Amino acid sequence: MPPERPLLRLLPGHGRRLKAGHPWAYSNEIALRPEHRALPPGLPVRLEGDDGWRFGTFGFNPHSLIAGRMLDRDPEAVINAAFVRSRIKAAAALRARVCDTPYHRLVHAEADRLPGLVVDRFRDVFVVQANAAVADWLTDEIVAALLATGQPRAIVARNDTPSRAHEGLAAEIRLLHGTDPACAVEEGGVVFPVDPLGGQKTGFFFDQRSNRDRVAALAAGARVLDAFCHTGAFALRCLAAGAASALLLDSSAAALDQARHAAERSGLLARASLRRGDAFETMTELAQAGERFDLVVCDPPAFAKSRKDAAAGLRGYARMARIAAALVSPGGLLFVASCSHHAAPEAFAAAIAEGLHRARREGRIVFASGAGPDHPVHPHLPESAYLKAQMIQLL
Amino acid sequence: MPPERPLLRLLPGHGRRLKAGHPWAYSNEIALRPEHRALPPGLPVRLEGDDGWRFGTFGFNPHSLIAGRMLDRDPEAVINAAFVRSRIKAAAALRARVCDTPYHRLVHAEADRLPGLVVDRFRDVFVVQANAAVADWLTDEIVAALLATGQPRAIVARNDTPSRAHEGLAAEIRLLHGTDPACAVEEGGVVFPVDPLGGQKTGFFFDQRSNRDRVAALAAGARVLDAFCHTGAFALRCLAAGAASALLLDSSAAALDQARHAAERSGLLARASLRRGDAFETMTELAQAGERFDLVVCDPPAFAKSRKDAAAGLRGYARMARIAAALVSPGGLLFVASCSHHAAPEAFAAAIAEGLHRARREGRIVFASGAGPDHPVHPHLPESAYLKAQMIQLL
Repeated sequence: MPPERPLLRLLPGHGRRLKAGHPWAYSNEIALRPEHRALPPGLPVRLEGDDGWRFGTFGFNPHSLIAGRMLDRDPEAVINAAFVRSRIKAAAALRARVCDTPYHRLVHAEADRLPGLVVDRFRDVFVVQANAAVADWLTDEIVAALLATGQPRAIVARNDTPSRAHEGLAAEIRLLHGTDPACAVEEGGVVFPVDPLGGQKTGFFFDQRSNRDRVAALAAGARVLDAFCHTGAFALRCLAAGAASALLLDSSAAALDQARHAAERSGLLARASLRRGDAFETMTELAQAGERFDLVVCDPPAFAKSRKDAAAGLRGYARMARIAAALVSPGGLLFVASCSHHAAPEAFAAAIAEGLHRARREGRIVFASGAGPDHPVHPHLPESAYLKAQMIQLL
Repeated sequence: MPPERPLLRLLPGHGRRLKAGHPWAYSNEIALRPEHRALPPGLPVRLEGDDGWRFGTFGFNPHSLIAGRMLDRDPEAVINAAFVRSRIKAAAALRARVCDTPYHRLVHAEADRLPGLVVDRFRDVFVVQANAAVADWLTDEIVAALLATGQPRAIVARNDTPSRAHEGLAAEIRLLHGTDPACAVEEGGVVFPVDPLGGQKTGFFFDQRSNRDRVAALAAGARVLDAFCHTGAFALRCLAAGAASALLLDSSAAALDQARHAAERSGLLARASLRRGDAFETMTELAQAGERFDLVVCDPPAFAKSRKDAAAGLRGYARMARIAAALVSPGGLLFVASCSHHAAPEAFAAAIAEGLHRARREGRIVFASGAGPDHPVHPHLPESAYLKAQMIQLL
């Protein structure tokens, strides 16, 4: 017989949000006794209101502000390999409907009812991020479930995210299955080598896939600037779609090396220029030198990494739009994006509008978008739709 | 010599929003003298701040809360047929890049720098809506510009919108050019007959075009319910994309007749059922009868038609989601949309989440979207992005 599942209760007056469907209980909402603080992080517990309302089975972490994350509405749900397998199966079924390639985000945390778990799929290589203790606690079950989905060549844990620190979890990168996880993404005719152990995040940014499709579709014949190009995904997609030229700009020599390698491999290097430098400084220099582009892509790292950075982050987006707008030829296009959780969509849009105005450029938003459908969103966690993008035509 | 362009001044302390790039001046911001109130509605005026800041040329309407609408930053801009022609040419150039058919919104008001003007294109038939006095004042120039774009078979004024009342403009529907404007839209293999003189709005809802593409792409094999189906565009697109069946539900016999006609013409009637009734009542009856669908589409008319209706409108969207969710089979899809200007995106999303929870259904948002790229948005008028849609997979 397994030990009885611990029962935790909310403090009086704290059930309303959870009753409305929110999947999290905060540490200051739970009547925590000393023995609860000693429970292993991630352990499934039952959660009830002080009125006896049964919220279900939650993954509990005594070391996190988000102390409880809903696993299932059923307080008796068995949380084992079969549970994880059924959740991953459902996640894969959705991707089979909305993704046309085996390169996508397979599991997107709460939206796929696997709290804090991210799994990116690179055909037969899977990269796992456990951003909550319960996902960490289920690592063996996750590996077993992925092994059951097919024959993964490798499974990598990329547990080096900042969010793990909030959960009291150590940073680690390790191979959970297989040997060499080096792989590649094929997207729009371009092959992007991926290094799951050494690249940024899980090795590739799937969240911009549908935006790359839309940007590339407008790039034929264009002179393209990809500021903050990282490994060049936007620029190379544009070149593959017929852009006349692309200037790839990044501050990281390693990222530019990868971009060059990808460009070479896909036969796009002849039309690509690569330049190392600070994006803001280099864009300012290019503008002063009279350079103009038909399409400028600005997809920077998050400017607002925490709530206290939010205002400074928004000023950064306004500045980015102002500087980039000066480089866009009349009638040309400016694509801007933000992956900051702490920049709300309206605030980001207002910052961009302010930047355009400060550049004395009028324009129209051709589309506003977010991440693709392999990044579903939990209806009660709208803030998890962190990616915001706009394509603006400037006059 | 034309008479000198009238000069209007803002009241002290009222230039900030306009200096930041907003294209409107409100009536209570302008130092209006009696002679201004006698100016013909729509007349171009110069607008300056009380500090002498020159905002440019605005279309003035003494009878509207939005008293000034920016035509051009140049206070001396010549507002004539050539001006309108150049603006429509630029609008058409954008559509040539982002639209793959001659069926689209050709002009989307302020975003295309033609304040209040909407033009929908049905290949060689153009339907014009002048939702501001300045657009009305420019009617002859608009017709001339459209005649210059090609050889329109017909141009129709569908000036029967509620927004005209706010501008003190009379409602009217009339032929501006040509004879019989009857036409059709071809979309995704379906032919939709369009009656520009008698249909709703301009005769067809182009704003949902890209959403219909996305919904239809997920409809193969599905049993579809199209509640609030109007003339059946979502349902028929789904059938053309391989849906097993579609139930079209609307309260308007005329709309259902048009839907039946379109279904017949495109060879889709065998898989279509049409039912007249109140969507809320009929969906409740269907749920009680145990009916379930793989895909439910809810694209109702605006529930919040004015600011004071906003709260009631949001309750309506929550109720719609609750009732519709009960009809979605496990793992099935629910598409919901709102065209209410007075329901903000976050508030709409929250209402839908509440409705799902009241239906005791968990789900994930697969995509959230708005109108297509032929409905560009002015960066300083984000509220003009009125269309909000979500595709949710329910468990």
